[in-house]
Amino acid sequence: MSKILDQLPAGENSPARGFAVPEFQARLARAQAAIADAGLDGLFLTTEPEIRYFTGFLTRFWLSPTRPWFLLVPSTGKPVAVVPAIGRECLLNTWLDDVRSWDSPQPEDEGVSLLAATMREVLGDNARIGIPEGPETHLRMPLGDFRRLRAALPNVEFTDATAVIRTLRMVKSAAEVKKIAHACAIVSDVFDALPAMLSAGMSEIEIFRRFKIVCLERGIDDVDYLVGGAGPGGYTDIISPPSPRRAGAGDILMLDTGAIFDGYFCDFDRNFAFGHAPAEAEKAYAALLEATGAGLQSARPGATCADLYRAMQSVLDKDFPGGSGVGRMGHGLGMQLTEWPSITLRDETVLQPGMVLTLEPSVELTDGRMMVHEDNLVVTADGSALLTRQAPESLPVIPV
Amino acid sequence: MSKILDQLPAGENSPARGFAVPEFQARLARAQAAIADAGLDGLFLTTEPEIRYFTGFLTRFWLSPTRPWFLLVPSTGKPVAVVPAIGRECLLNTWLDDVRSWDSPQPEDEGVSLLAATMREVLGDNARIGIPEGPETHLRMPLGDFRRLRAALPNVEFTDATAVIRTLRMVKSAAEVKKIAHACAIVSDVFDALPAMLSAGMSEIEIFRRFKIVCLERGIDDVDYLVGGAGPGGYTDIISPPSPRRAGAGDILMLDTGAIFDGYFCDFDRNFAFGHAPAEAEKAYAALLEATGAGLQSARPGATCADLYRAMQSVLDKDFPGGSGVGRMGHGLGMQLTEWPSITLRDETVLQPGMVLTLEPSVELTDGRMMVHEDNLVVTADGSALLTRQAPESLPVIPV
Repeated sequence: MSKILDQLPAGENSPARGFAVPEFQARLARAQAAIADAGLDGLFLTTEPEIRYFTGFLTRFWLSPTRPWFLLVPSTGKPVAVVPAIGRECLLNTWLDDVRSWDSPQPEDEGVSLLAATMREVLGDNARIGIPEGPETHLRMPLGDFRRLRAALPNVEFTDATAVIRTLRMVKSAAEVKKIAHACAIVSDVFDALPAMLSAGMSEIEIFRRFKIVCLERGIDDVDYLVGGAGPGGYTDIISPPSPRRAGAGDILMLDTGAIFDGYFCDFDRNFAFGHAPAEAEKAYAALLEATGAGLQSARPGATCADLYRAMQSVLDKDFPGGSGVGRMGHGLGMQLTEWPSITLRDETVLQPGMVLTLEPSVELTDGRMMVHEDNLVVTADGSALLTRQAPESLPVIPV
Repeated sequence: MSKILDQLPAGENSPARGFAVPEFQARLARAQAAIADAGLDGLFLTTEPEIRYFTGFLTRFWLSPTRPWFLLVPSTGKPVAVVPAIGRECLLNTWLDDVRSWDSPQPEDEGVSLLAATMREVLGDNARIGIPEGPETHLRMPLGDFRRLRAALPNVEFTDATAVIRTLRMVKSAAEVKKIAHACAIVSDVFDALPAMLSAGMSEIEIFRRFKIVCLERGIDDVDYLVGGAGPGGYTDIISPPSPRRAGAGDILMLDTGAIFDGYFCDFDRNFAFGHAPAEAEKAYAALLEATGAGLQSARPGATCADLYRAMQSVLDKDFPGGSGVGRMGHGLGMQLTEWPSITLRDETVLQPGMVLTLEPSVELTDGRMMVHEDNLVVTADGSALLTRQAPESLPVIPV
């Protein structure tokens, strides 16, 4: 287990919730350096992780699509929020000073004219404004409103700033890593305890429900992501919700979870065998663990995502050549379940200390079944450290 | 309690999970009638609720922003999916026949060329394609990719189809209402049982965690939304996550939850008093219950959202004139926590049988505090029926 995990005391507010103001000052300073490098006058942000990254305001209110939230990050000075009235006091309780709001819902002008006026004032009539419009981004406001915004600001240039956001968020601070490590530690405990809680005859629905309850009992805030399944010798897909099918001897069960502490995700899975592990499943499990180990060994500053991919694939090629259809062998992790970069042959992103990644090799078995194993790591100054607890050397068996 | 609730047996798969094929056939027939009325050649959809509405495929995989999913709804014939390879088998297991996929992640062409070719083939080189771009919508693909898509289809016209989608999804089928009612029934039970589970000295974090666990134990799949708080005589905002503050005598506690069964939300709240209810809180609670009752009485086919707003506001005006900053007094509900319409003075949407709404009046108290009450209803052939259980006539008291 990594040193990071050893240092974590137990308890619902350990590590501390939220961040101290210097965390946001450091984020803003890095952002403004990148804004200057890119020749921008500022950033225009509409999505939950980006707005939380700069303000610190955590809310589930984003589940409601009615009201957009906007944030401007100027080239100097603090970010300026333009938010619906329901969020005004919340944002004023963050480190921001300038929060503007409109009465919402107001579909005929859902903040657009206030936003346009604020952009003009804060960023300038002729500003060059960066917005995230590259891979893995989206604009979280109606397309029609964005068109109206551009029409209201005829001399403003909106240009892609995906690289700015990606560069910032890809490298985590120590305080961010602590939160992810805390989620990993709790869920590692849950996975260790799971075989004793399960028995043959339980449905996938029951197993998933039990898993979520135990995560909550042990200090997880929300189990937003839980997929997987059970089937004879393996499972056929890894993104479906649980089925009413009851698990029995010879089944392989996999649970893949994105569980949250204070707005930060872990994302890893574990496999289990009901009664006994079929030989092919044991062999696949061993190959996946060996591949993950090879990925971990390769993860160090200066290595690329493609290096990690090759290290894992060369292990899998021995007994399980060919792909599994998942399309990558891991990805970034943090405020979102999956973040940039992707561990693929194509991705030449260079690893830096503070990057948090999943390693997620998968193999195809016979009869259209598959197996996937996933762990989480942080890149350190001279290598990397597992944030998840080492998985058992052979498939844990649930007695039937 | 409504008849709908009485008819629901208990058990984890009751009502049944998923929908039978005729449900999707009926949705498609309504969609294609609206597509014809709007003079469109089809719809282009990118967001989770819309794609689930037409395919039935439920997955938490949407939490990962890496891979876009696309669906075309042509003017005749079944929808055609264009999805990343990881989702291909899942979509082929739905009622769809035509599922096309690309190896993903592939940021340099994340499905765009396959999507363009499929649009050309299925909808035509000169198609008029509806996309949701009005209030409460967003495009769930990178803006840069959408620009590339349009460049690849120079003769295709993309035009707003928000009204088509809104009209379809606003009126729920009986099978949809059953799922919402089931979530409402479970959470009504949890709220009834809650006072006995809580005690003074518990933190908001502990209370929220306990609530989520009990919801899961009783058959809820996920408690995606839980906000609220506790404070002396009332609370100051209704969208923040729980704090470490411990509740004590004189506090008013509110929990507002969006809890899910098989992909359908309930969305309602309940208020509680620790030890005793301050006089102002009792008065506000009575006014909110009376207002909700007036809203329920007004909810019938032919009435408008503005009618419901006026019915509730006229009750509140007696003792609590002025607004609360929430901006509306309820909204639609179903596959999303909040859906169209909004219960505001401006919204002249005419109620129809099968619409599911929340009633959510709120009042401002002294010292910047507030109180909000929320219930869920379905519009019936000749009126409306509560889906949530009637709240206690006076504030439930948690002994301290």
